[in-house]
Amino acid sequence: MDFALSPELEALEAKTRSFIREQIIPFEKDARRAAHGPEDSLRIELVALARNEGLLTPQASHDFGGLGLSHLGKAVVLEASGYSMLGPIAMNCAAPDEGNMHLMEAVATEAQKERWLRPMTEGRSRSCFCMTEPSPGTGSDPSALRTTAVKQGDRFVINGRKWLITGAEGAAYAIIMARTIVDGEDVGATMFLTDLPAKGFTIARTLDTMDSSFSGGHAVIDFENLEVPESDVLGAVGKGFHYAQVRLVPARLTHCMRWLGAAQRAHDIAVDYAARREAFGVPLAQHEGVGFMLADNAIDLHMTRLGVRHCAWLLDQGARGAAESSMIKVQASEAVFRVADRAVQILGGMGVTRETEVERIFRDVRAFRIYDGPSEVHRWSIARRLFRKAS
Amino acid sequence: MDFALSPELEALEAKTRSFIREQIIPFEKDARRAAHGPEDSLRIELVALARNEGLLTPQASHDFGGLGLSHLGKAVVLEASGYSMLGPIAMNCAAPDEGNMHLMEAVATEAQKERWLRPMTEGRSRSCFCMTEPSPGTGSDPSALRTTAVKQGDRFVINGRKWLITGAEGAAYAIIMARTIVDGEDVGATMFLTDLPAKGFTIARTLDTMDSSFSGGHAVIDFENLEVPESDVLGAVGKGFHYAQVRLVPARLTHCMRWLGAAQRAHDIAVDYAARREAFGVPLAQHEGVGFMLADNAIDLHMTRLGVRHCAWLLDQGARGAAESSMIKVQASEAVFRVADRAVQILGGMGVTRETEVERIFRDVRAFRIYDGPSEVHRWSIARRLFRKAS
Amino acid sequence: MDFALSPELEALEAKTRSFIREQIIPFEKDARRAAHGPEDSLRIELVALARNEGLLTPQASHDFGGLGLSHLGKAVVLEASGYSMLGPIAMNCAAPDEGNMHLMEAVATEAQKERWLRPMTEGRSRSCFCMTEPSPGTGSDPSALRTTAVKQGDRFVINGRKWLITGAEGAAYAIIMARTIVDGEDVGATMFLTDLPAKGFTIARTLDTMDSSFSGGHAVIDFENLEVPESDVLGAVGKGFHYAQVRLVPARLTHCMRWLGAAQRAHDIAVDYAARREAFGVPLAQHEGVGFMLADNAIDLHMTRLGVRHCAWLLDQGARGAAESSMIKVQASEAVFRVADRAVQILGGMGVTRETEVERIFRDVRAFRIYDGPSEVHRWSIARRLFRKAS
Amino acid sequence: MDFALSPELEALEAKTRSFIREQIIPFEKDARRAAHGPEDSLRIELVALARNEGLLTPQASHDFGGLGLSHLGKAVVLEASGYSMLGPIAMNCAAPDEGNMHLMEAVATEAQKERWLRPMTEGRSRSCFCMTEPSPGTGSDPSALRTTAVKQGDRFVINGRKWLITGAEGAAYAIIMARTIVDGEDVGATMFLTDLPAKGFTIARTLDTMDSSFSGGHAVIDFENLEVPESDVLGAVGKGFHYAQVRLVPARLTHCMRWLGAAQRAHDIAVDYAARREAFGVPLAQHEGVGFMLADNAIDLHMTRLGVRHCAWLLDQGARGAAESSMIKVQASEAVFRVADRAVQILGGMGVTRETEVERIFRDVRAFRIYDGPSEVHRWSIARRLFRKAS
Repeated sequence: MDFALSPELEALEAKTRSFIREQIIPFEKDARRAAHGPEDSLRIELVALARNEGLLTPQASHDFGGLGLSHLGKAVVLEASGYSMLGPIAMNCAAPDEGNMHLMEAVATEAQKERWLRPMTEGRSRSCFCMTEPSPGTGSDPSALRTTAVKQGDRFVINGRKWLITGAEGAAYAIIMARTIVDGEDVGATMFLTDLPAKGFTIARTLDTMDSSFSGGHAVIDFENLEVPESDVLGAVGKGFHYAQVRLVPARLTHCMRWLGAAQRAHDIAVDYAARREAFGVPLAQHEGVGFMLADNAIDLHMTRLGVRHCAWLLDQGARGAAESSMIKVQASEAVFRVADRAVQILGGMGVTRETEVERIFRDVRAFRIYDGPSEVHRWSIARRLFRKAS
Repeated sequence: MDFALSPELEALEAKTRSFIREQIIPFEKDARRAAHGPEDSLRIELVALARNEGLLTPQASHDFGGLGLSHLGKAVVLEASGYSMLGPIAMNCAAPDEGNMHLMEAVATEAQKERWLRPMTEGRSRSCFCMTEPSPGTGSDPSALRTTAVKQGDRFVINGRKWLITGAEGAAYAIIMARTIVDGEDVGATMFLTDLPAKGFTIARTLDTMDSSFSGGHAVIDFENLEVPESDVLGAVGKGFHYAQVRLVPARLTHCMRWLGAAQRAHDIAVDYAARREAFGVPLAQHEGVGFMLADNAIDLHMTRLGVRHCAWLLDQGARGAAESSMIKVQASEAVFRVADRAVQILGGMGVTRETEVERIFRDVRAFRIYDGPSEVHRWSIARRLFRKAS
Repeated sequence: MDFALSPELEALEAKTRSFIREQIIPFEKDARRAAHGPEDSLRIELVALARNEGLLTPQASHDFGGLGLSHLGKAVVLEASGYSMLGPIAMNCAAPDEGNMHLMEAVATEAQKERWLRPMTEGRSRSCFCMTEPSPGTGSDPSALRTTAVKQGDRFVINGRKWLITGAEGAAYAIIMARTIVDGEDVGATMFLTDLPAKGFTIARTLDTMDSSFSGGHAVIDFENLEVPESDVLGAVGKGFHYAQVRLVPARLTHCMRWLGAAQRAHDIAVDYAARREAFGVPLAQHEGVGFMLADNAIDLHMTRLGVRHCAWLLDQGARGAAESSMIKVQASEAVFRVADRAVQILGGMGVTRETEVERIFRDVRAFRIYDGPSEVHRWSIARRLFRKAS
Repeated sequence: MDFALSPELEALEAKTRSFIREQIIPFEKDARRAAHGPEDSLRIELVALARNEGLLTPQASHDFGGLGLSHLGKAVVLEASGYSMLGPIAMNCAAPDEGNMHLMEAVATEAQKERWLRPMTEGRSRSCFCMTEPSPGTGSDPSALRTTAVKQGDRFVINGRKWLITGAEGAAYAIIMARTIVDGEDVGATMFLTDLPAKGFTIARTLDTMDSSFSGGHAVIDFENLEVPESDVLGAVGKGFHYAQVRLVPARLTHCMRWLGAAQRAHDIAVDYAARREAFGVPLAQHEGVGFMLADNAIDLHMTRLGVRHCAWLLDQGARGAAESSMIKVQASEAVFRVADRAVQILGGMGVTRETEVERIFRDVRAFRIYDGPSEVHRWSIARRLFRKAS
């Protein structure tokens, strides 16, 4: 066992940290941080800064201009990027693009990669992943998928409704999951690619949500006879759930990485505040009640970091990591929420205002306990594995 | 001991509930619910509805057009009003006006009441209470008050800065707490009344905050030589902290009442959702994990309701209720937060969107753990009393 | 609503408190407090003290020498008795006797009352309630009952195994729940009375358990052709589950009362300790971390007390109180555990020794989260009611 | 970073696990497990088994017959030993002996090692560490040390009282910490060695405690003119606190290791129970409420294991690990308590009996939240470091 990072990775972490602190944090007061995420002009400005530092899309392979980071490398660098909620936007490693890029590298044809992946890895476009549906469609339970794609000649005709589709507003293309009907027969779920805007792809509206840091926000999408030619199927017909798995665990883990960085930020702001403020005649820092909360933050951050890195290392060894990624999803989402919640409390009145980033981080990480599977679904899945082993 | 409500109070509760459900909840999708609270045109519309039902300003005395509710009566009716975040606005029993009316009834001269209180009890004006200051001024610790009022002839000249001043934007008048200097000597804190707008009273800006249900939001106020004639002192010079105590405990308790109603609402939405939605082939309601969360909600709501009513009853007996109101403030603010948090979780993706009121309630009640004294200050105060008794 | 106790009840509470403090607490260091509960000689000595004070069996009717307390009266007096773990033993209001007396008063014939109930209300005998069975028999789920009573002529022949039967060792008689077979047909569960010792009733062994305050401990019982004449059936044949319900809710509630008293004791010991001890140069009481724990204790005790009294009052109104008693069972058992746990922590090394009562209280109240239905079963039942109302 | 264990360590872990399961667990029902720990005859029998397997005192250096395990090696092997509460006794790596051996190897002279350390590493003797004092002496706060050692000629004369001295009953020798007076001057704390029994060293009594797995239990010791020759000083006069630090962090960490193993055991028992038992017509394992508790256990165990191994690795790198060991002490003691508590709850009635090891583990791990510094002291220390960095 060896818990040390390689010198190269340490250097990259340090470089990323400096970049975030010096070049990205100053943009946090930018008025273009709207309720539905940073506006595109801001995104482009930030991306240019990361490109300039050689920190754009670090998770992509060298072929696609990235640093070819291992999962462990991502654990270190994406955490550092998350230290500002704008960091992953700047470095082009935010959800859902980061997961989509991972999926495209793994599954797309060369032609598809040049057409859709390369502009995205270069920070020139965004994408969305159309999976979740309103009730009674697929949410936590993928088998409930209701959107259909019916084969008609050399194309598929897609109908249905999706919702909570992150980044749809402003995306250059979409990956769409649909139950596929060929010759009247259900052949399973398939992933389809389509340029945007497209006839038959309507953004019904963008939802107002508690979180506010995803580019484009979260949309409701209606498919009405959206046509996708056979050549724009991603991978094979009927293999949609298989590819969803390819995307699932790594994307879940990068969520943990970025939000861990955000929680570290909230904690640092709270420590700094407690060290500078007085209450009842003594520095806030000397109030045990405050100190205990910060100590719990330190423990939560430390444990979560170990767990994220361990799971990333597991994936690097070729493991599927289903059990471990469920465990770390629950641990990370709940720990970072606790950290943010304590930071709000320590800041008092200041904590519920947008005067510091803590308020925004608190709202954003609340959603993390639900995105990519609520804690309850993961707990259920962890338990099922325990009993399978026991019986 | 008798836990039954009087038939009159039960009838009033039922009437309030119907009013909120039938007449107020339909406005929850109104676009005039802005980030800094409901706009004034919406407020006026809602107030008219309550007036029409005889439910306007129910907590005021009969002299001022109210129902002359006891504290226990308020516990019942204000909880019912809080079932919609717009309810207390409609019924004119929201913070800070409700506390200000209570204070004015108790302390103001007849002339002051006619001038400032009556328009407010009639739902024709709003007010603000200028107490909290930015660091290192008064926040949780009142003794740190920094704003000054210097006596010059027959008037006081006020200078200083306040912040987190709820409802300042749009208020017809302000109650201002300031350290008072007469003949060069600090004679203690005094409360001053001033019409708004006023020369020397500047709203520097309205803060962006996590909560969004207070009319006018929360402002930063600068006093630059604001002049207040002697006749507009509220009560006696130097008695400001004493009057603050008069306002403090009852206002803290009405917070608990209203937010308890909001938590009940979040819970009811979650129960309804769980009863109608399916996940993994069975109704959400049949998932023990969901049922357990709702059971905990039911317990939290039940206990908090008992505690709020007990404390209200204590005040009706003439007790100061300092210890009990601290206990119930911690209990209520933390319990309603847990309830709202579980409701978000049960709703899943829906829970973090503004499709239901749960998202807004969650954000609003987070702030309640800080407003009117963060839990930590109350815990400290409760502990101090315990040790005083022990030694 | 009126939260005041009647002067009579207040006087009785004060008298009980004095009795416990002055006469019972001195026995807590008595060596006869064994691992399986206080020895019988100790019990008899304590009972004599309570009899002398007119505080013996206060919950029984006047006919049976008690004070004819209402449920609310019990809430007050039994809490006061629980301030020492020996108090309910002394006052003859401990489990399972207290519940058995309640059941016997409600269901037994006059002859049965004179034979079994009167000696017990006079503190001259103890009893046991043989319901719970080892897996796969009845535990949390009553329908799994496996012990059988087969009618043969004018008697019933009982076979089966029970376990966790509190107080069996040393009991003068037993109430036995068995699935009843008459003429080869299952006619439902019945309750049977039998003097002890009896042929066919064997105490296989007394279990070692975490708790140590029940007279006689908890036993495993084997029935091998135990014969019970028809006249010793308690109530009607086949009505066992109905009578179990008669016993259930009130007995559950008296558990809450007694253990609330115990938790108050643990808290008082901790407050006293914190007020007298120093750590790191300041009194423990001045450490916020300690004060916060004690404040949480005060809140937990206050809320639980309100909830217990409310539920008792409900029963006094004739309500069944199924939902409320489930809620207060969860609240009380978990709150008193938290209180005891915090008391242990505040006492530090002292807290894990038997130098104070805190260690014993901690172990005893842990079991309360399981006895009379674990929290999980109650949460499930509360949730089921919520959904029934919602659909 | 590399989370893989070396093949050698994996093999040793597997061997230890088999040894505990096959040879030690069968002794858990042995009647010689008394309230004050396993009796010496049992200990000797178990030690012989470990010796036979080459698993005796694995943490000692090769010179002293051990396996010369690194801290990381200990993390793996001592966790495996803790899978039975008798395991560390058998393998001679239990507290306080394990810490004492570590200290003696680091500080004692060759002669002292041969006299006191070697018999102990060979499993032929036990020892005790006399540090903690009753109030107002040293407990969590070492500076309050009150026991004195006064130099008289070539010997020291020790007077004072210690308590909670683990393993004193039956120990072959003691290490005693005392404030040292030479020529009337306080020269600081010193550690002294003394054979037992000794004139002037009286075991006043053995305390009854919640835990029951330490050989010899916890005693109160009186020193009355205990004489120790200069040659039996451990290390240098006045360096006692320095040596206490040498022992402190590693001993704290081995506590975490052993108790983590115990928590894993409680969890495994609960999983097995849930997989085999039915409740309300379905296997307990299918109750989400049960599954969620077990999932939380799995997460707690996984995170704690990572944290313990990380801290051990840090020590292997030569770090002092003060901050990390405080964090892992809080994490481990609180997580293993939660695990044991959930295991009790899942077992229901069975959980509070001594029918499984869970009941004993629960009681033992409760004490761990206090031993080696209560959580509160560690949180305070963690916070202090945070603020030191911030200012």
